[in-house]
Amino acid sequence: MAVYTEVDDQALSAFLTLYDIGGLLSFKGIAEGVENSNYLLHTEAGSYILTLYEKRTNKADLPFFLGLMNHLADKGFPCPTPICQSSGAMLGELAGRPAAIVSFLDGVWPRKPQPKHCAELGAGLAKMHLAGADFDIARNNALSVSGWRPLYETCNGRADEAFPGLAAVIEQELDFFDKNWPTGLPAGVIHADLFPDNVFFIQNQLSGFIDFYFACNDAFVYDLAICLNAWCFELDGAFNISKARAMLQSYTRVRPLNAEELAALPLMARGSALRFLLTRTYDWINTPEGALVRPKNPKECLTQMRFHQDITSPAAYGLDV
Amino acid sequence: MAVYTEVDDQALSAFLTLYDIGGLLSFKGIAEGVENSNYLLHTEAGSYILTLYEKRTNKADLPFFLGLMNHLADKGFPCPTPICQSSGAMLGELAGRPAAIVSFLDGVWPRKPQPKHCAELGAGLAKMHLAGADFDIARNNALSVSGWRPLYETCNGRADEAFPGLAAVIEQELDFFDKNWPTGLPAGVIHADLFPDNVFFIQNQLSGFIDFYFACNDAFVYDLAICLNAWCFELDGAFNISKARAMLQSYTRVRPLNAEELAALPLMARGSALRFLLTRTYDWINTPEGALVRPKNPKECLTQMRFHQDITSPAAYGLDV
Repeated sequence: MAVYTEVDDQALSAFLTLYDIGGLLSFKGIAEGVENSNYLLHTEAGSYILTLYEKRTNKADLPFFLGLMNHLADKGFPCPTPICQSSGAMLGELAGRPAAIVSFLDGVWPRKPQPKHCAELGAGLAKMHLAGADFDIARNNALSVSGWRPLYETCNGRADEAFPGLAAVIEQELDFFDKNWPTGLPAGVIHADLFPDNVFFIQNQLSGFIDFYFACNDAFVYDLAICLNAWCFELDGAFNISKARAMLQSYTRVRPLNAEELAALPLMARGSALRFLLTRTYDWINTPEGALVRPKNPKECLTQMRFHQDITSPAAYGLDV
Repeated sequence: MAVYTEVDDQALSAFLTLYDIGGLLSFKGIAEGVENSNYLLHTEAGSYILTLYEKRTNKADLPFFLGLMNHLADKGFPCPTPICQSSGAMLGELAGRPAAIVSFLDGVWPRKPQPKHCAELGAGLAKMHLAGADFDIARNNALSVSGWRPLYETCNGRADEAFPGLAAVIEQELDFFDKNWPTGLPAGVIHADLFPDNVFFIQNQLSGFIDFYFACNDAFVYDLAICLNAWCFELDGAFNISKARAMLQSYTRVRPLNAEELAALPLMARGSALRFLLTRTYDWINTPEGALVRPKNPKECLTQMRFHQDITSPAAYGLDV
C-alpha cells in the first residue's frame, strides 16, 4: 500500500480548475499501486483516479503511457482514460510531481482467480493487442532479455541473500537465454504486468485493465506468457492447466497464434519467470526493513521457471497443437 | 495510513447480499484512519465506506458509535449514516472482523485550516451537541481525568524516552488535575477527537464530521477545548486568536456557554492538551520502528499545555466576557 506524496486540498482545488470536471467533492489516498501515489477523487462530474508519478516512473515515458490509455479507450478497449485539461494537456504537475487524472474504472480484481476469469482475461488481452496495433508511439521493453543481465548485475552478487543458490540459478538462465531467446515474433504494444490486481471484473465479466506503467513494445506472446505465470499457478506452486487452457483458447479465438508463437511459448514463459525473479530479487535485497511496501517473495518465480524448463510443446499448457 | 485486514472480493460480494445496496462495483483500501481498516466501496446504489473494526476498537462500544451516527443523521446532522442490513442490523462480520457500511460523506479536510473553517466548525460542533442531547445510549469517557493516571502508569516510567523531562511535567499536571478538574458542567455526547482530518468541507462550508470512534459522554466545553488545541495553534506552536474567536463565537451563537463553562475553558483546554500528550506519549514509546502508522510527536501538546497554564480568563481565547 502506498501514498508517497501528500496532496494539499487547496493545491488540488487549484489544479482541478485546469480541468472541466467540476469542483472537488472528496479525495482519498488509496492503498494500491507500489510505484506511484494514487487518490480516488470525487468531483461534481464523477469519480476519477489522480496519480502522482513518483521517482521510479520515468517522466519521459508518461506520454507513451497516457497516450496508450487514451488510444485504447478510443478504440473501445476498457481501461482508464486520461482526462485532458482544458488546454488539451494530459499531464500536469501537483505537489511537485507530474500528475494525471484518469477516469475511474469500476470493477474488482479477483483474489482467487478461476478458469472463467482466465478465459475473460485471454480474450481481453488479445483485444488489447489488436487495439494497440496502430498506436504511434513506441517504448522499448527495458525488462526483456537484453535488460536482464544489467539488472542482475545491480544486485552486486547479493542474490543469495534472497535464498541460497539463487545466484547460480540466475546465471545459468542468463547464459541460456543469451543463446536461446526467440526473435522475429509478431510484436506490438504489450501490457507486460497483467497480474490479477491489474485486471478488473464485475460479476465475473472483464471490466477492464489498469496500470499500464510497464507497457512497452514486445512480442505479443511474451505478454501471454506473463499472464500464464501470473494467473495459472496455485499458491502451492502447482500449474493449473484448466486455467491455462481457458486463457489460451480464448486468446487464440480473438487473435490466433502462428506456429512460431506457439513454439516460443515455453521459452517465453520461462523467460517471464526469470524477469520477475530478477526484479523481485532486486527488490528483496534492496527494500529496507519496515518499508511501506513489502517485497514479494522471489521463490514462486523459481518454481514457475523450473516448470517451464521441462516443457517442449505448448500442448502442455492445454492448447490443441 | 492503514489497511490492516485484507478483504476477499468473493467474501465481500457475499456480505453485500445482506444489504439492499446492489452489487459490488469496486472497493479500494483507503489510507485514512489509524485504528480500523477502511475501504471506499462503489455499489450499484452509490458510494459507501466499509469499516472493519480492528482490535483497538472495543466491540462492545460499536452499538454506541453506530447508534450515535444513526441518531445524528436522523436529526439532520451531516455525518456518515450506518446502512442497515435487510435484517435491520447495523453491524455484521467480514474477514473475521466486526464490519459496518456507512454512507459516503463528500468533503475534504482542510490541510491548512483558516478562521472561516474554524467558524464553520464551531457552529457545527454546537449543532452536534444539541442533536445528540436525546441519544439514549451512554459511553463513559475513558480518556478524561480519571483515566489519565492509569494511562500514564502503562507508560512504566518511560515517558522521558519521548523527550527528557516529560515524566516530571506529566506528573505535575496529573497532581494538579486531581484537585482542580471542573465538574458539574453541562454534558452530553461529545465527539472528543475533532481534529481537522475528521471535519469535511466543500468550498469552505462544513459538509460534516466523520470518525465518531472516540465519542462519549462528557462536558460539552471539553469538546470545544479539544477543538481549540486541534485547530487554533500554528505549526510553530503560536496560538491564533483569530481562529479561536471565530470558533468560539460561532459555537456560542448556536449554543451559548454558561458562566461555569466559560470559567472552565482554560482548565479544559489545559486538560485536553494533557490527554493528547498522554496518548501520544504512550504511542511514541510503544510504536515499533517502521510501523505502518507513524506516531505523532507529543511535543506540540506540551506547548499548548504551557500556553493554557498561563490563562486565567476565556477572554484570552477571543471571547467577549
